[in-house]
Amino acid sequence: MLMFREPAIVVNFKTYLEATGKRAVELAKKAEKVSHETNVYVAVAPQLADLSAVAKAVEIPVFAQHMDPIKPGSYTGQILAESVKETGATGTLINHSEMQLKLSVIDELVRITRRNEMVSIVCANNPTISAAVASLKPDVIAVEPPELIGTGISVSKAQPEVVAGTVKLVRGVNKKVTVLCGAGISRGEDVTAALKLGTQGVLVASGIVKAKDPYTIMREFAEAMKR
Amino acid sequence: MLMFREPAIVVNFKTYLEATGKRAVELAKKAEKVSHETNVYVAVAPQLADLSAVAKAVEIPVFAQHMDPIKPGSYTGQILAESVKETGATGTLINHSEMQLKLSVIDELVRITRRNEMVSIVCANNPTISAAVASLKPDVIAVEPPELIGTGISVSKAQPEVVAGTVKLVRGVNKKVTVLCGAGISRGEDVTAALKLGTQGVLVASGIVKAKDPYTIMREFAEAMKR
Amino acid sequence: MLMFREPAIVVNFKTYLEATGKRAVELAKKAEKVSHETNVYVAVAPQLADLSAVAKAVEIPVFAQHMDPIKPGSYTGQILAESVKETGATGTLINHSEMQLKLSVIDELVRITRRNEMVSIVCANNPTISAAVASLKPDVIAVEPPELIGTGISVSKAQPEVVAGTVKLVRGVNKKVTVLCGAGISRGEDVTAALKLGTQGVLVASGIVKAKDPYTIMREFAEAMKR
Amino acid sequence: MLMFREPAIVVNFKTYLEATGKRAVELAKKAEKVSHETNVYVAVAPQLADLSAVAKAVEIPVFAQHMDPIKPGSYTGQILAESVKETGATGTLINHSEMQLKLSVIDELVRITRRNEMVSIVCANNPTISAAVASLKPDVIAVEPPELIGTGISVSKAQPEVVAGTVKLVRGVNKKVTVLCGAGISRGEDVTAALKLGTQGVLVASGIVKAKDPYTIMREFAEAMKR
Repeated sequence: MLMFREPAIVVNFKTYLEATGKRAVELAKKAEKVSHETNVYVAVAPQLADLSAVAKAVEIPVFAQHMDPIKPGSYTGQILAESVKETGATGTLINHSEMQLKLSVIDELVRITRRNEMVSIVCANNPTISAAVASLKPDVIAVEPPELIGTGISVSKAQPEVVAGTVKLVRGVNKKVTVLCGAGISRGEDVTAALKLGTQGVLVASGIVKAKDPYTIMREFAEAMKR
Repeated sequence: MLMFREPAIVVNFKTYLEATGKRAVELAKKAEKVSHETNVYVAVAPQLADLSAVAKAVEIPVFAQHMDPIKPGSYTGQILAESVKETGATGTLINHSEMQLKLSVIDELVRITRRNEMVSIVCANNPTISAAVASLKPDVIAVEPPELIGTGISVSKAQPEVVAGTVKLVRGVNKKVTVLCGAGISRGEDVTAALKLGTQGVLVASGIVKAKDPYTIMREFAEAMKR
Repeated sequence: MLMFREPAIVVNFKTYLEATGKRAVELAKKAEKVSHETNVYVAVAPQLADLSAVAKAVEIPVFAQHMDPIKPGSYTGQILAESVKETGATGTLINHSEMQLKLSVIDELVRITRRNEMVSIVCANNPTISAAVASLKPDVIAVEPPELIGTGISVSKAQPEVVAGTVKLVRGVNKKVTVLCGAGISRGEDVTAALKLGTQGVLVASGIVKAKDPYTIMREFAEAMKR
Repeated sequence: MLMFREPAIVVNFKTYLEATGKRAVELAKKAEKVSHETNVYVAVAPQLADLSAVAKAVEIPVFAQHMDPIKPGSYTGQILAESVKETGATGTLINHSEMQLKLSVIDELVRITRRNEMVSIVCANNPTISAAVASLKPDVIAVEPPELIGTGISVSKAQPEVVAGTVKLVRGVNKKVTVLCGAGISRGEDVTAALKLGTQGVLVASGIVKAKDPYTIMREFAEAMKR
């Protein structure tokens, strides 16, 4: 099964009602349609309660939004990597700016995903933090300035220096890691700008989930990636 | 659908591998068998990633192990009541000693479950904390001394004063709430002792999940409830 | 030494620069002056780094803003009751809405303060939470609706039902505990209203710390208490 | 005033009763004596409630054990850099393994200390995390394997590869940062080993605070540094 491929579009469903339960499955199917039509890598990150239903319904990669740094055992209410893996999920977001983690926990989660043959996408708020994350050797780093999340003001257009600076600092530490950017990405030209600045894709949420026609926006993003 | 009924056995699957993925569904079916055979209320609390599969597979009530005090929106990696509800789950554990919460969060979660017509089972470490929880008016309070959890030393046999004291203090504040006890419950006589001390049932985990033959133990628990 | 007496004015210095370092000592001396002139109980809660200097400089009771539920030992960066006690402090705020704690931690801190012969002032966001706290038997409960904190809109004038409801619910559980109210208290008439609603005093912060003339406002508060 | 100098001994007082209140001042004076006699840099990190008293009593550098990433304002119970600075403290420990922080908070605290002209000592559990921290450009990194803390089994003797590996990985990212090691350091030869492995000093706690004769041990450590 396809784990990860550049360039990539990763759609975070957050806890939007538009992407909860049945509607999570429907949105994931639209993402799958775009991926099949354009041959661009599109992955989705639904809520945990929807993970197995979504993973069963689509062939594109499915990510958890979070996992906890635990082993099987006496933990209640925490998210075990093995339980995520068994749903058919490909990997997990780690340290999203809405779920920020201790440094030692990020380190542990990167190791846990690797051990479970899952893909780790670690989020970072700025270039310096992205460089720090690069030393932990995740598969993917996604830089997202928190102040732009959900605004529709694209990081790649409004703060190109953040994106370019992240690519530069990360490459100084780690040549292999994939770099995505996110926050405010809502049009094809935002995606084009992101790629020009040296990233290998985008992490998006409201720009797609809250769009009137998510299919058309995802298609626009994917087309921008093919140019 | 049956929401809650006394006396009750609630089985917390925690993050035990013996109760993850397919094995969560299998264990839930055994619980359902016991419930059907004995007409005793048996509910299960699997991991979140297994919630929808378990809720689809059985007719007995299914609980989440935890929820977050959020509304639909821009939250990543958190657990939305609406997503839990849509899996078919009946309610949720709140404030388990392995997932302890801020007082204001417990208050909010009790309100959220009520608003979503779900059953709230709030855990408490000792009689005083149980009395505090009683003011929040959850559906169920489960007292569990953390030092006995997972030991096989039953709270109802080893610390009867904790169980009786909880019932007394809770009743001083709230006449209606159901009181369960947990920690170390592993034999039918532990259940009998719990009921004699004034509780309306038990919250159990390793005593069943880690048992060689969980069906037989659950059956023994249920028989003890019928006496 | 005077521990606690009703009616009471407790001034939380928060982390305002106007009440940091030397200025913490100066503000505490103004509070002491008001207390001496009016014979009303006025206590101050400076930042931890200022606690010993303030406690040495004034004779009125001094409170910590927070403590951690730890025993002496291998803890770094946490706040040990014994270290607070040795500065000469009288007690501590617990669970302020800007430092909300787990329910079990509040329970533990109330026990720790009692064991160390210190006064516990537990904050609560609403009447229900106040009632829950009452079961833990702290010395003082201070109800403060978070949405009014720092607004200058007095809880006792804008939400009298919150204050009266708290007094009623708390008294149903605990006859002895002192009840204060806070949030937006900025004039003498706010204090008068608070007492009429059944409280035994106020917890204030910006209304005094950020005032042009803190002495005059504290004096006004104290005079309102004598009526 | 002396901020930082290599090689360095930093003594973390934790929340040991042996180093609380008056005894914190006494221990700090012993550290000062050793520093004056040997001309080796010795710094102490007492509890926050003791910070101002210790900083007034000795001329050697004094560190906080923790600070919070806040600005002056409406925060209760948190530790403001400005309040720490005003006690006369030189800097702060950040992210001790007993007070682990979110990655973004560590980043922010390093910036806050720099802006306040204070020295940042960031702790890390292992070489990989140390390398990540190096990207944040603190003044000092202290690697401490949590499993050895408080054991008396010295990291520099028992896990030399951890110390050497940290130095190597950190230097790959950051040439300037000072590297200390800690955990189990209790004899002069542990210090000698630490320096030979490429560090510029040690972070110690129980090895000194719990020693029968802390002065003699600190003196032994300092002599080992002069060789």
